[in-house]
Amino acid sequence: MSAVNKTAHAFDKTRFDALLNRRFFYAPAFEIYGGIAGLYDYGPPGSSLQANILAEWRRHFIVEESMLELDTTIMTPAPVFEASGHVARFADWMVKDTGNGEVLRADHLVKNVLEARLEGDREARGAAPVVVAAADDKKKKKKKQVKSTAVKLDDAVVAEYESILAQLDNYSGPELGGLMRTHAITNPTSGNPVGEPQQFNLMFASSIGPTGQHPGFLRPETAQGHFLNFSRLLEFNNGRVPFASAQIGRTFRNEISPRAGLLRVREFTMAEIEHFVDPLDKTHPRFSEVADVELVLLDKYVQAAGQTTTRTMTVGAAVAQGVIANETLGYFIARIYAFLLRIGIDGRRLRFRQHMANEMAHYAADCWDAEIQNSVGGWTECVGCADRAAYDLSVHSAKTGQALVVRQALKDPVVEERAAAEWDKKLVGKTFKGEVGAVSGAVDALDEAGLMRLKGELAQGPTTIKSAEGKEFTIEPGMLTIERKTFKTSIREFTPNVIEPSFGIGRILYCLLEHSFWSREQDVERGVLSLPAVVAPTKVLIVPLSARAEFDPLVKEVSLRLRKAGVHARVDDSNTSIGKRYSRNDELGTPYGVTLDFASVQNRTMTLRERDTMDQRIGSIDDVIAIVTELVLGGIDWTEACRRLPAYDGVQAVE
Amino acid sequence: MSAVNKTAHAFDKTRFDALLNRRFFYAPAFEIYGGIAGLYDYGPPGSSLQANILAEWRRHFIVEESMLELDTTIMTPAPVFEASGHVARFADWMVKDTGNGEVLRADHLVKNVLEARLEGDREARGAAPVVVAAADDKKKKKKKQVKSTAVKLDDAVVAEYESILAQLDNYSGPELGGLMRTHAITNPTSGNPVGEPQQFNLMFASSIGPTGQHPGFLRPETAQGHFLNFSRLLEFNNGRVPFASAQIGRTFRNEISPRAGLLRVREFTMAEIEHFVDPLDKTHPRFSEVADVELVLLDKYVQAAGQTTTRTMTVGAAVAQGVIANETLGYFIARIYAFLLRIGIDGRRLRFRQHMANEMAHYAADCWDAEIQNSVGGWTECVGCADRAAYDLSVHSAKTGQALVVRQALKDPVVEERAAAEWDKKLVGKTFKGEVGAVSGAVDALDEAGLMRLKGELAQGPTTIKSAEGKEFTIEPGMLTIERKTFKTSIREFTPNVIEPSFGIGRILYCLLEHSFWSREQDVERGVLSLPAVVAPTKVLIVPLSARAEFDPLVKEVSLRLRKAGVHARVDDSNTSIGKRYSRNDELGTPYGVTLDFASVQNRTMTLRERDTMDQRIGSIDDVIAIVTELVLGGIDWTEACRRLPAYDGVQAVE
Repeated sequence: MSAVNKTAHAFDKTRFDALLNRRFFYAPAFEIYGGIAGLYDYGPPGSSLQANILAEWRRHFIVEESMLELDTTIMTPAPVFEASGHVARFADWMVKDTGNGEVLRADHLVKNVLEARLEGDREARGAAPVVVAAADDKKKKKKKQVKSTAVKLDDAVVAEYESILAQLDNYSGPELGGLMRTHAITNPTSGNPVGEPQQFNLMFASSIGPTGQHPGFLRPETAQGHFLNFSRLLEFNNGRVPFASAQIGRTFRNEISPRAGLLRVREFTMAEIEHFVDPLDKTHPRFSEVADVELVLLDKYVQAAGQTTTRTMTVGAAVAQGVIANETLGYFIARIYAFLLRIGIDGRRLRFRQHMANEMAHYAADCWDAEIQNSVGGWTECVGCADRAAYDLSVHSAKTGQALVVRQALKDPVVEERAAAEWDKKLVGKTFKGEVGAVSGAVDALDEAGLMRLKGELAQGPTTIKSAEGKEFTIEPGMLTIERKTFKTSIREFTPNVIEPSFGIGRILYCLLEHSFWSREQDVERGVLSLPAVVAPTKVLIVPLSARAEFDPLVKEVSLRLRKAGVHARVDDSNTSIGKRYSRNDELGTPYGVTLDFASVQNRTMTLRERDTMDQRIGSIDDVIAIVTELVLGGIDWTEACRRLPAYDGVQAVE
Repeated sequence: MSAVNKTAHAFDKTRFDALLNRRFFYAPAFEIYGGIAGLYDYGPPGSSLQANILAEWRRHFIVEESMLELDTTIMTPAPVFEASGHVARFADWMVKDTGNGEVLRADHLVKNVLEARLEGDREARGAAPVVVAAADDKKKKKKKQVKSTAVKLDDAVVAEYESILAQLDNYSGPELGGLMRTHAITNPTSGNPVGEPQQFNLMFASSIGPTGQHPGFLRPETAQGHFLNFSRLLEFNNGRVPFASAQIGRTFRNEISPRAGLLRVREFTMAEIEHFVDPLDKTHPRFSEVADVELVLLDKYVQAAGQTTTRTMTVGAAVAQGVIANETLGYFIARIYAFLLRIGIDGRRLRFRQHMANEMAHYAADCWDAEIQNSVGGWTECVGCADRAAYDLSVHSAKTGQALVVRQALKDPVVEERAAAEWDKKLVGKTFKGEVGAVSGAVDALDEAGLMRLKGELAQGPTTIKSAEGKEFTIEPGMLTIERKTFKTSIREFTPNVIEPSFGIGRILYCLLEHSFWSREQDVERGVLSLPAVVAPTKVLIVPLSARAEFDPLVKEVSLRLRKAGVHARVDDSNTSIGKRYSRNDELGTPYGVTLDFASVQNRTMTLRERDTMDQRIGSIDDVIAIVTELVLGGIDWTEACRRLPAYDGVQAVE
């Protein structure tokens, strides 16, 4: 096998972007209409890559763990997002340029300007420029867009800027406004001052039906669709927890001013799991299978101390030591890790970062982001994995009055004796009429001691009781009997907790493309995408020597046999050299190629080429089809293929 | 094998709906919030069924025909739909109840009321009620919602009503308003009169970005995303046509008052193909493979004569006789037919109906709908297959100024001699300054004769020419030289035509469920969904005799081996009888079941049950896994499985 040096050339973003554009992995949507920021279309290789990532996701999570798949609507009536808190809180702070009206995200503006000043200070002090992309906080990851100029700052100012940047997620809108005034932060592209920060809700609004009576929003996540169907899902699972629902679908966020390619978009595909679990038992039956998996962790204590030092530890140890809150959360973090490696993410550029206390949603018990390092966003959140406790089911239950609970038969019924009130319904109804509810509510609100006190008072004669609204009612002794009774409970009722792994597919896809890209050592212009076969858009390229009719029967035969074996192949019979056709498919990430030439027609042989090494082997058509099928479907690796097929040197020279 | 009588009980819509609801195939979205008409969520079996239909669609079309897959955005800026004509014309006519404000679709109101009156007339004349659902026109298929009362009409009135109904698609909004006045049509649920019909655009509107500067719509079809990316797709295909792009995605239509379940919804999944083809050559290289396929056709001439008589003919004959416009259209119609049969649609309830001249979009050359018969909508359009000519590319090209064309090298260059004008650019620029464009445009607009006349005039001295805006310019002889020259064209440039097969996945899924449903002869309460294995949500049910730990190792082994073989299996170890578990899975459409019991533990045997016949066979675990894998992946049928495995009678009694 040939040696391959994938790091001969440093990563070149310009070459990388040119390749993605040239091969139509994705492109700005509505390009011929001038495009709209934050909206992208996926072309044939991008669509296939995405479809393959999703197919593997479905296999790895839904099939492997028998999850219940859902497909719920994107269009959502407003009351759902009022209950979930999105209408009130799913917002960013924006500021407007007072001169040209340009709208900027307030925290991004502060960050970009202060980072540029710090960079200028470092330059003035004679230090080499620092790559800002490696910053550790998730909101600090945007590519630097503000040019720095070499101006030295006072040491105290440097310290203050660094402190502001470290706490950027903590500031409210008015605080961000204050920082802009204090530090004379203006729009760097125009030099104009900006106005006060204003909240901007990120949900796209619309209206359902012809009369506008149903305001609606496009969902910013798929999660609510799971929660609203909880009771049906529970019934489908025979009334038992734990179980998980899973959904792959489009979501929408009306970002203020998206400029980070696929990392910040207004419409994207998410894959989300909601694992419903008993709050008293968050163990996981398959935890032992992942306990030894080693992860790179950045926990909240390290971050709170202003550090970004990661540590490597096993999932088992992390849960045992309380670094990760519980087994189920740890299990999913390990499964996320396995998934990302499987599709081709570089494990050295993957870490799990815990949310800090102030960063986490108030209801969440623990939350970890899988962060993948890339050239645009530094360490970028690509998967979130949160223990959302009982928040979601509770708020929808409160809003709708529907019980969203699990009812579990208890092995040993709980027996307890307590005071119980019984009304003479007829008499009470006649006396209080429309206020029966208020009266009985007032009694229901009493605790054991209160009830026994009331019993004593009634033994003396009529007494008064105050309703929740403060109104007094007089109760006659005959209306109410209070006795201690024995109650036996054989059902436990509880609101399950939710562990939520949530994947941003576009971000993962983008990072995967970056991690897969390199240039041939001998020619930097020859880019390669080393996508694993499991996600590669095309698995095998079929290359006839030319478009001549004599190759047609063999091309058809090989195509059909590969298709029947479940191996996605494509024919490239374009009018160009075999070498050029292979180069084009190196850029498309096609792992294997087979060539049909005159020897194939005469001897039924076929060569097999591996993308990364450009090694070529030769064998009978039957053998090559069998081996490439095993290569693609995961049975063997290239070393084994080389053991089975002799080397071929005939065509190598053409490249 | 047991005999199966699937028609022992007539189709029972109530039982069918109850099954779909009980097994959570789908349910109204936001049910706990009271629901919103026209929005549905798919539960686990519905999601899997849909995913399997789409996987088969992808295999049948995209893979089999090497189509270029796309994934474009749903959110679309307004100019795109202004160019496509959707902003002006993608609308229905609605009327408002003048009393309670209820909004109704105008054509549906006329149809429902007149049909109810005709039904009442038939009852008064003593005839048996007619099933309205079997009506032949696509807009006549809504379930009858208006109750008829037995009132005899004059023969002339009956004839008039029938004539109105036959032409319902032809009426404009004002005409529908006139019909309502003439025939005293009121809202049947309230008895109130309705107002004048008003146009209602069916696109959901939103706004992109924080400042509202980009009005946008949710796409009502995926097609525009293909057209806008045409140039990139063409380049990806090495500049050659024909090729096809394909896209599966969500689309949105804000229906006025949807009440037909999955047949008329506000958000749905479409799968669309845009096949780009040379307008001068609509032959198809694989046409011979489908020429002998027999189709049931309802052509436009038959319909125009007021008939609904279908005829059965081969695709080859239909194209040869001009019934279907061209080979490519015919090829796709045949491929659509094969796809629908493959996923389980009943061929006897499937026909292809040609659009009538007045029904077809003005730009379309020919259009056929695959109509599937069902109890809700009668013959319902589920797939459209249209020759859209060059319309779409032309309008976007005109709006954006981008050339959306194919450039084809001609084998024999075309040589022609014609007059050509050449300006003295410097002199013209100095003379006309900002009006150079108007002057040269005026000359460009001249034909051969006009140019030669101008040449003659200039030979005499200065002359005048009138611009398109009517302004006169004086041209001096030195400014312009006109000569006959020889032009050689070696490139042919043309706008390709588009053949568009467009699938409404939810409608297909609903019809498939109806066609698959029946009740056991011995017990009408025992429903079965005879879904083919290729689309069934679960292929094999694994049923341990009980949840006892001793069966666990075998359950795990069988699950793992089936999963590795690519067969989607599920374990049902719920605490109920084997018979009940099988019945539940008959309702879920699971084609096969295997039982693990004490004999399995002792002898490593396993029984295999077939859903429709309830036949049970027995064999070694190895043999049963091998055979069920072949059954599911399409190698053998049940007859062959019965030949290989002996019958088993032990458990039959339990059911």
